[in-house]
This record gives sequence, structure tokens and C-alpha cells, in this order.
Amino acid sequence: MLGNFSYHNPTKLYFGEDALGYLNEELPKYGKTVQLIYGGGSIKRNGLYDEIVAILKENGKTIVEDAGVMPNPTAEKLREGVKLAKENKVDFLLAVGGGSCCDYAKAVSVSVHCDDDPWDKYYIRFEEPTCEIVPVGCVLTMAGTGSEMNGGAVITNHEQKLKIGHVFGDDVMPKFSILNPKYTMTLPKRQMVAGVYDIFNHICEQYFSGEDDNTSDYLAEALMKSVVHSSLIAVENPEDYEARSNIMWSATWALNTLISRGKSTDWMVHMLGQAVGAITDATHGMTLAAVSLPYYRFIMPYGLKKFARFATEVWGINPAGKSEEELANEGLEALKNWMQTIGVAMNLSELGVTEDMIEAIADATILLDGGYKKLDRDDVVAVLKASL
Amino acid sequence: MLGNFSYHNPTKLYFGEDALGYLNEELPKYGKTVQLIYGGGSIKRNGLYDEIVAILKENGKTIVEDAGVMPNPTAEKLREGVKLAKENKVDFLLAVGGGSCCDYAKAVSVSVHCDDDPWDKYYIRFEEPTCEIVPVGCVLTMAGTGSEMNGGAVITNHEQKLKIGHVFGDDVMPKFSILNPKYTMTLPKRQMVAGVYDIFNHICEQYFSGEDDNTSDYLAEALMKSVVHSSLIAVENPEDYEARSNIMWSATWALNTLISRGKSTDWMVHMLGQAVGAITDATHGMTLAAVSLPYYRFIMPYGLKKFARFATEVWGINPAGKSEEELANEGLEALKNWMQTIGVAMNLSELGVTEDMIEAIADATILLDGGYKKLDRDDVVAVLKASL
Repeated sequence: MLGNFSYHNPTKLYFGEDALGYLNEELPKYGKTVQLIYGGGSIKRNGLYDEIVAILKENGKTIVEDAGVMPNPTAEKLREGVKLAKENKVDFLLAVGGGSCCDYAKAVSVSVHCDDDPWDKYYIRFEEPTCEIVPVGCVLTMAGTGSEMNGGAVITNHEQKLKIGHVFGDDVMPKFSILNPKYTMTLPKRQMVAGVYDIFNHICEQYFSGEDDNTSDYLAEALMKSVVHSSLIAVENPEDYEARSNIMWSATWALNTLISRGKSTDWMVHMLGQAVGAITDATHGMTLAAVSLPYYRFIMPYGLKKFARFATEVWGINPAGKSEEELANEGLEALKNWMQTIGVAMNLSELGVTEDMIEAIADATILLDGGYKKLDRDDVVAVLKASL
Repeated sequence: MLGNFSYHNPTKLYFGEDALGYLNEELPKYGKTVQLIYGGGSIKRNGLYDEIVAILKENGKTIVEDAGVMPNPTAEKLREGVKLAKENKVDFLLAVGGGSCCDYAKAVSVSVHCDDDPWDKYYIRFEEPTCEIVPVGCVLTMAGTGSEMNGGAVITNHEQKLKIGHVFGDDVMPKFSILNPKYTMTLPKRQMVAGVYDIFNHICEQYFSGEDDNTSDYLAEALMKSVVHSSLIAVENPEDYEARSNIMWSATWALNTLISRGKSTDWMVHMLGQAVGAITDATHGMTLAAVSLPYYRFIMPYGLKKFARFATEVWGINPAGKSEEELANEGLEALKNWMQTIGVAMNLSELGVTEDMIEAIADATILLDGGYKKLDRDDVVAVLKASL
């Protein structure tokens, strides 16, 4: 905890099978016109849409429909959402879905009362909000991004071939989020697994950086162990409520700023994965999985001590008689075995990436310097090629 | 995470060597008259008092002095503090000190605008606040109680020989807390060690209950490991900033409701320790330490699986070839060794308790039923006698 930092996370969470009822406590705090944000038709098929519309009506709300938020929400969709909110003078944004819907709602929330183009303002010029922020609430149906309790909002611009995240401050975080693990059970297994790897990698991004014995690293290890434990149960039995609930709760704490307090962070797997996503539109968690092992093998020599700790503390590998390097390698082997067991994408080819796309992906990769070894463009190309 | 629960912790934390400067950001949000709450003269000797008074004056505040908050704040002192706040129509309560000062400030905050006697209302009738709550801020000088980010307020009534905690809701939590690990370095070593054991036991109270593979238990183990690791450094070198900062941060997260989400909790060590405190006025953390091992040995047979997990996950004990009972015993031996190494009270005799006090302590012990075995009064007497 050597750094100076602040921590403030005002999002109120309602967790469990009965959590939706708390919408009735929250909705009266906000204005009459609610923009109801969701993705495809899954919430209509499983009845959640009807339940939420009924609650909104009981609370006297006027509903502005904003359907069709895609898995990687686009700048184009964002502009449409902002227009809809402006035209209807919405008072509240209610996102029902996974991280994409929550992210999109936050990006809309900081743009409704601004005149600038939201993509240019927040994703090219990286400005902070300068206008009134419309409050956001989330009903989460997929565990993964942590968007339900943070200020992050990732938007993709297909024309510019960019997928960029902006982490806003605590005034943009959802006012409340409703987390019912049962909702996550309706997802296809591949989506669940992608979410699990997204969670795990959020933790890795904050863990594989820095060299002290920071409390945050102990907490990161705890979350990793819980995710691994519960994911192995959930892939066998996706209906296991306890496993799904632990995955959902771990996802929230993996990316709500707690485990990065007082330490440096990496985030290069996300930069690589987001670049892959910008070019291919592949599922976010799978893009992370496909580049992770080559990336970690590349940086391992520069952070041997932490990779050795990862092996013993997360995977329970016995250190007796082993060098740091041996331990570090065994840790990455354990990670690989777990990834194969739960069934994530093990390489970029599985996601449709071909060698001729590598240069474009490298162009779209933002280079950060918090990890054990700063990558240059050649390194990025090498990691991407090793990921094919 | 089988239970339904909510989580909302709006306290803003400023952490690090430069944290005090953030008072200048926070103070303008509150009214003019500030009740400055502190304990003995230590903050006058180390200069913190002068620094804070200067900041308050720069921000145009009128200071109402409320000194002399004792380590176990009394109902009598609470009534005086409420009277002072009423007479001066204070707008804000700024506690500078350890958990006692923060607890006391919260107990005052819910009583200023009420007519009832605060002890009777909150500690005998256990009512919730029914009047306007005066906002509280904390500048923490001792790590231990977690009071800086929760709604808890423990008050002692010597006449009635009772020491009782009331956990208030999120509207009573401090609006902000300033955590500078350097302040904790001015404490005598015995106080530091008592704080360390208080932290560790807060985690135990939430850990030793329930039987699932809850994410909260993994987080609890992480905090325990971090506290053990850093405490061993800090007892050798109390000036080690990194160790002291990790202890301070772990203390906050050990008792801000995170690690109890979705699970049952115990809290009997605190009930026993608080009863000892009510009779002897001994240091809180030491009262917990003195009764812990006899209590855990008593309940161990009813929670063998968790005690075995405690041994392997917290203390790194190799489970090969051992029964759950053997492991559980080795875990408690490891706990005992650590307690002896850091130098906490290992029995009640060290705290001045004699056999003739046992009945009075048992009378003052509140019996809870969240742990692996509910104690009856005879069990309490047995545990207390084993603690002598």
C-alpha cells in the first residue's frame, strides 16, 4: 500500500434471488422518464423484460425503449442512444443486460446534456464529463465486466477500428445494481465461460504489476481462487446457484477498484484483446483468453517473483525444491490447464484471426507501461503471432 | 453467497502520507460549526491537533472542543458529547483518533437531534435513529476497529456493567475518513498489537461460521494472511511504512461488511471480550485475544471442516496424511504461536481478571447463535475459566 490513493464506491448492490424487488425502493428516487436499455430479445424470452416493465409502470414511469445494444456497443449506437435520451428528456437510464448494456448506459449518461460528439469527447480526447450526468441503474444478467459497480464504459468504433475504454469517476458509477445469479443461468455456456475468463483476467491485470506485499494482492489471489473453484463447478453444472453466485460476486469485486488500491496495474491483455475485438468483433472474454498465455510467457522473466507467487498462492503448487522460474512456469501451466478445462479460446485462430490481420490489430493496440515489461510494437506483433 | 443481501458503503477514504490535505476538499461540503472529538493529549504532542485546527480555521469553521474520549467511551461521556453538540448546534462531527473516537462520534451523531437518552434508545432498546443525523468525518490514528468505514458504535456503561455495540446503517457511516499510516506509528507497541489482534479477530468472527465455499471466506483468508504477514514485520520494526499501511488497509476491509456478505457470522469472541471490558476496562484487542483460543477450542469440533481449511489456507499447513481434526488443531496451534510472537494477552489473568469476577463477566456476556455451537451460560463460564 505504498501509494497514496482514495477509494469511494457509492453504488448500492442488491444481491440474490429476490433482488429485483428492490427496484421498487430505488425507482421513486429518480424522475419520471426512464430509458430502458437492453440488448437482444433474451430478456423478452425469459420474462425479465415483462417483470421490469410491470415494475416501472407500477412506479408511474414513462418508458423510453432503447433496445438492440450489441455485445461490443458501437459509437454509432451510442450517438443514437444519446439522441433518444435528449429527445425524450429522460431522467434515468435503466440498463438490463451484461456489461455492454451497463457500459453503454454510462456512456449515454455523460453525453445527454453535452453538445460534443460522445466518441470524440470521451474516447479520442479523453475528456471528463462537463455537463449534468443522468443517473444510471443496472439489472445485471451476465457476470464478467464488473460494470455494475464501476465507472468504466468501453465503446467500439468500427470505422476507425478502435475499441476503447474510458473509466469515469464515482459520479458516473451506477446508483444501484441488481444482481440475481439466476439471470446469469439463462446464458449459453460459451458466454458464461467468456465472462469467467474476463473476470479472471481483470484480476490478473491488477495482480501482475508491482513487487510489494500489498494487501490488494492477497485480495486478488482470493478472488482468483474463488473464481477458479466456482467455475469448475459451473462448467459441470451451470445451474449450480452457489457457484454462479460466487462467480457473480467475484466479478463485481474484481473490477470495482478495490484490488488496485495502492499499487500499479498492467492492463496489456485488455489492450491486446480490445484491439482483436475492434478488428473481429469477437467475444471480449475470448479475445483476452486467446492472447493471455503468450503475453504472460513474454513478460514472465521480468516479473518472476510474482509469477512464482501466483503458482503457489493461486494454484497451490508446492514450492519445495523449485526455482522461481520453475514455479512461474508451473503456474502458467496450471492456468493453461484450467483455461482448457473450462473451454475458453486458446488461440486467435479460433476467433477467426489470420496472419494478415496482425498488423491491423497491432495498429489498434494501445501501449501501456504498468506491467513488468513495456511492449513496443514489435513485441505486440510477436505476442499476437504467438497467439495465432 | 447463498443468502440475499445488499451492500452499500458510501464512505470516501483518503489513504496515504498526504491524505490529511483532503480535509480541505471535504470540509466545505458541511456546515460552519465543527465538534472536534479526540481522546487524550497524544494528538497535541505529535502536532496533529495543531495541523487539523489550522485546516479547520482556514476553512472558516467554528471549533467546539470535545476532548477526553476514553478508550472504551462511556454512556456518561456520550451524554456530555450530545449536550455539547446540542448547545452549540454543531453541523459536523470530526473525530480524530482510533475506533473509540469514531464510535463515539457516530453515537453522538444519531443523538444530537433526539430527545431520548442515547444509551437507553440505542443500547438498551436497540432502536434505529429517528431524528436528523449529524454528519461525521474521521481522521484515524490507530488501525483496528474498522470504525472508519462502518456504522458500528460500541459504548460502555460502567454502572450497568455493560459494553454494547450498535451497528447503524449506511447513513451513519462516516462521510469520509482520512487514513495516514504514519499516524499509527506514534502508538505504543502494545496498542499496535492489540489493534492487530482486533483486526484479525474481526475476520475470524465472520469466517468461523457457515459451511459453503463463499467468496467472502476467500477474501477473509486473504485479509488474515496479509495481517499476519505485515504484523510480523511491524513488531520487529514498527516504523515499516509498508507493513503499517497494509495493516491499516486490512483493518478497514476486515469490518466494513464486505467479508460477511452472503454468509452467517459468529461474534461470540467479541461478546466475551466486551463483557471482560465492561468489568475490567482492559484494552479491547487484548480482551479478545485472552478468550480466543479457549473459545475456538470449544467450538472446533462443531466446525471441523472450516478449522481445517483455516489451517491449510491461512497458515499454509500441509494437509498430507492428516485428519480434519489434526489439521484443525494445527491451525489453532499456528494461531497461538503467532499470537505469542506478536505479544498479545494470552489469558485473562494478564488483564487482571480473577476467578471471582467470572460470574459478573458471564452475566455481561450477550449470547449469539451464528457460530458453530451456541454457548449457554455454563459454556460461557467454562470458556472464561479456561481463559484465566
